[in-house]
Amino acid sequence: MRVFRRKAVWTMVFRRWESFSWRLIGFAAAVIAAGAGALAVENPVGEVPQPKNVILMVADGCGIEAYTLTRWMKGKELAVDSLEVALVKTHSTDSVITDSAPAASAYATGVRTSNGFLSVGPQAKVLSVLTPPPEDLQYRPLATVLEGAKLLGKATGIAVTCRVTHATPAAFMAHLPRRDDEQDLMIQVVHQNVDVVLGGGRELLLPTSAGGKRTDGRDLTKVLKARGYQTPQTRQELAKISGGKVFGLFAPGHLAPEIDRPQLGPDEPTLEEMTRKAIELLKADPDGFFLMIEGSQIDWACHANDPAYLVHEMLMFDRAVGAAAEFARQDGQTLLIVVSDHATGGLSIGNTGPLSKGNLTVETVVEPLRRMKCSATLLWKTLGKDPTPERIQTVLQEEWGIKTTPEEAGEVLAEVKRASKNPQNVFTFLSTRYTALGWTTHNHTGGDVALFTLGPGRPKGVLASPQVGQCIAQALGIDLDKLNQRLFVEPGKALPDVKVELLPEGAKTPQIVRLQAGQKRVELPLQENVLNNGDRSVELEGLCLYASQTKRVYVPLQVLRLLTDSQEPLPKITKE
Amino acid sequence: MRVFRRKAVWTMVFRRWESFSWRLIGFAAAVIAAGAGALAVENPVGEVPQPKNVILMVADGCGIEAYTLTRWMKGKELAVDSLEVALVKTHSTDSVITDSAPAASAYATGVRTSNGFLSVGPQAKVLSVLTPPPEDLQYRPLATVLEGAKLLGKATGIAVTCRVTHATPAAFMAHLPRRDDEQDLMIQVVHQNVDVVLGGGRELLLPTSAGGKRTDGRDLTKVLKARGYQTPQTRQELAKISGGKVFGLFAPGHLAPEIDRPQLGPDEPTLEEMTRKAIELLKADPDGFFLMIEGSQIDWACHANDPAYLVHEMLMFDRAVGAAAEFARQDGQTLLIVVSDHATGGLSIGNTGPLSKGNLTVETVVEPLRRMKCSATLLWKTLGKDPTPERIQTVLQEEWGIKTTPEEAGEVLAEVKRASKNPQNVFTFLSTRYTALGWTTHNHTGGDVALFTLGPGRPKGVLASPQVGQCIAQALGIDLDKLNQRLFVEPGKALPDVKVELLPEGAKTPQIVRLQAGQKRVELPLQENVLNNGDRSVELEGLCLYASQTKRVYVPLQVLRLLTDSQEPLPKITKE
Repeated sequence: MRVFRRKAVWTMVFRRWESFSWRLIGFAAAVIAAGAGALAVENPVGEVPQPKNVILMVADGCGIEAYTLTRWMKGKELAVDSLEVALVKTHSTDSVITDSAPAASAYATGVRTSNGFLSVGPQAKVLSVLTPPPEDLQYRPLATVLEGAKLLGKATGIAVTCRVTHATPAAFMAHLPRRDDEQDLMIQVVHQNVDVVLGGGRELLLPTSAGGKRTDGRDLTKVLKARGYQTPQTRQELAKISGGKVFGLFAPGHLAPEIDRPQLGPDEPTLEEMTRKAIELLKADPDGFFLMIEGSQIDWACHANDPAYLVHEMLMFDRAVGAAAEFARQDGQTLLIVVSDHATGGLSIGNTGPLSKGNLTVETVVEPLRRMKCSATLLWKTLGKDPTPERIQTVLQEEWGIKTTPEEAGEVLAEVKRASKNPQNVFTFLSTRYTALGWTTHNHTGGDVALFTLGPGRPKGVLASPQVGQCIAQALGIDLDKLNQRLFVEPGKALPDVKVELLPEGAKTPQIVRLQAGQKRVELPLQENVLNNGDRSVELEGLCLYASQTKRVYVPLQVLRLLTDSQEPLPKITKE
Repeated sequence: MRVFRRKAVWTMVFRRWESFSWRLIGFAAAVIAAGAGALAVENPVGEVPQPKNVILMVADGCGIEAYTLTRWMKGKELAVDSLEVALVKTHSTDSVITDSAPAASAYATGVRTSNGFLSVGPQAKVLSVLTPPPEDLQYRPLATVLEGAKLLGKATGIAVTCRVTHATPAAFMAHLPRRDDEQDLMIQVVHQNVDVVLGGGRELLLPTSAGGKRTDGRDLTKVLKARGYQTPQTRQELAKISGGKVFGLFAPGHLAPEIDRPQLGPDEPTLEEMTRKAIELLKADPDGFFLMIEGSQIDWACHANDPAYLVHEMLMFDRAVGAAAEFARQDGQTLLIVVSDHATGGLSIGNTGPLSKGNLTVETVVEPLRRMKCSATLLWKTLGKDPTPERIQTVLQEEWGIKTTPEEAGEVLAEVKRASKNPQNVFTFLSTRYTALGWTTHNHTGGDVALFTLGPGRPKGVLASPQVGQCIAQALGIDLDKLNQRLFVEPGKALPDVKVELLPEGAKTPQIVRLQAGQKRVELPLQENVLNNGDRSVELEGLCLYASQTKRVYVPLQVLRLLTDSQEPLPKITKE
């Protein structure tokens, strides 16, 4: 019995500007449809060998001027400077300025979605230039290139400097229209069977009773143990690992800022170390791999308008890019994409202050940043509670090399009091006086971002952000349309006679979906990849999900095959 | 007799970062030397047909966010959105933040120079990361791709919205280490025999006695007349021209801002009209052409932090790019490069004001700009002398659609008084309140800029700014080393027995150089391309120049051939 029926193909075009942004003609057909001018893939599948591996590196919140500033700090070419270049239009479906969730979702799924949404379809309300999404796309889980790579037998990995449940990594491993529900996201992440997960967020594995932050009482470390994960907690432990699955969370929350590593995170691995280890482990898979690496805190440094924090994050990201590029060049079968998700802070080299008058030397740009020995957040902690102006003068001098007058220290104090909710932001106004850098905001900005490429299958031109995800899918050989149809099926639509129940009955947030077809009944814990059939438990190839907004259930097609005892093989997710 | 001797080849390497920036190994050898990663020309000369034509379009002062903003204003794809992408590192030899003079000089000559310098070698003082230039490069004229194109028999053209003696156009047609000496620059421009010159600056052709601004009493319109130029002064007159040489200056100074065209410049051609006419005229040359087009006032709009002025300039630039791309696509033998020289103003979509809170709609971004009906400069004029707060309220409402409170009008008044030297800047602080845009400065900024390409021979990757010029030279088939050796020879070095005199004797600014070899004596008016030998006058293939800083004279090799009655043909400027 063939339970899967091809759903009506979505065709989403623009009301006013046709090729400006997301368009779905089926999922993956968009790759071809959008290909005309903006997405001209050099090595289309079939004509030349397609890459075996894809490494995507995300410089979160990094605008163009941050790269330039980092080059001056480094004193020589950046790793991206030897790559080819494209640009990406970043907006989400409902905002000219995206947040990291839909930005990463576009790269992960090839579909543009709403602010705050992680790899699920957009809400109905969209920018005036877009056609609202069809009803059955709204909140629907969107399969990611990582999930597709797994189904192709490729190894998969994630390495980030934030909690692994933060927006960018979560967009590749989970599906939820609320990026802040990181407890839920961690359930999905541990059930994704990703081979290598490196970053922070250990506190989201354990219940509060065991020192964690989970309020649902669950201990997810048991899942990791049952699935054979190694769980290193320090750079030393990570260094010793030479094979097998790894779930390495090196801090309760986010990792330490690179600039504060000596004080706050001496035992955490650097992004470069995580990158090298991830590649070392993943390249052992003869089928190839997909790896996503994020310089997560570039964005936060820009949010804080904290230039020294920024350049230390960027210099470490540059080393990670160097490591990945080195591998990709040697390997020859790896597509490397380095891209930002949006810019943050409105950074510019040049401002209205005294250091920007006349010709600007390299030293004027870099020396103020070299004198800063910690992030603004750590400096704030160093100041202590209720600092006096004298204390402020001392700490600014010692930690940031800034000699303030008593009057300025008084201004800082006033600013400290005013901005106490965002202590990391309070020194922004010193920036114009003591650096040659300008900032326009503590939030994201809307400009196009740079995308750098190396290897076969590279995209070029000015890309809509979903085209990045479509291009990764194409490079990996994934047909996103087929992948979505295999991973996320509405049981009631695919099997008209199936009975679908959510448990506990009447609960606001159901935990389990029960499916019954004829005499056969299975239970599927939501956000997990597990099917329970009486005593028997099966690990599924994808997650079972519930969209509370639309009250729809999505399960892998595999569930329906098991439920109906069908022997029909699951459909391929490759093109033909 | 072979008067030309090959000069010692310059080798300029970096003290600290080898491939970071300018490096000269001879002039044009650098094209190859720099080619490794950063400049990988797709169609190297010799392997595939090289382009016949090159069109360079400069969006002066345009950063990435200005493109994005313009796309939202336009409501659909920009013309550059269908092109391929590279990035350019913009710094000059003596500043992290370049000005337009060395930026354009890098594109024109393939050599990086000092701020304020137009297509002459840099001064000795350079950024700490660079090796100082050898003594004989300092202040030396650097041959431009336009001059090279002329020597290859190609037609040449310039179309800009500023005075044609302003930095960007002047860098292609003149050589002077002082960008502000526009009277001198106009002498060189009229003696360059460029086929099509379109823009502003008519007042620099005529002496003050004839209503112009020349203080040297010269009437350069006579030169234009003698050389057979048509000199249209309106868009209507330009439209009627269908062939021949054109020197069309449509305003005494700069052309009107696009947004103010209805009031200030209804009879001036638009940049799109000038672009289309220039292409129409130049494409008639069977040898091909080089054309430089500049959206000159994008920069000034950003200097003023004036968003409506900016987007109107950008939308017109976009139309000009559309026209050029249309031609290049049809032609198939044209390399089109669209690039900025630097960014200005630190523009961002998103600021700290009320409009940037939460999700940002398209309307929030574009409608405030649509309500603005004139540039800040024109608004300032409309305000009149000593405006009252009430007058400010009225004019802001009528011209910019901004409803201010009496208190705000008072603030504007205070700002008006404070900033009276830069009246166009006084409304910057309204920007945060009444638009969703942020600005960091009234000056240039230091970030990399986007470069867009279409057609054969396109550069890619992250380019040092001189590589853009080197790439244009390569596309045109010019060997810059040979070109420089043919156009700018120091007579005393090439012909040891020549007697060199500057006239008037002892003058601070000599007007003429007199050369004597044996019995033969010729006189060369400086900044012109004329050789006078008694009654006989010869038009030369290049300008005669004097570098007052080094007291060196530079003349075309042709002069020495004429002086020595040599019949030897002039050396080729192509590669082999």
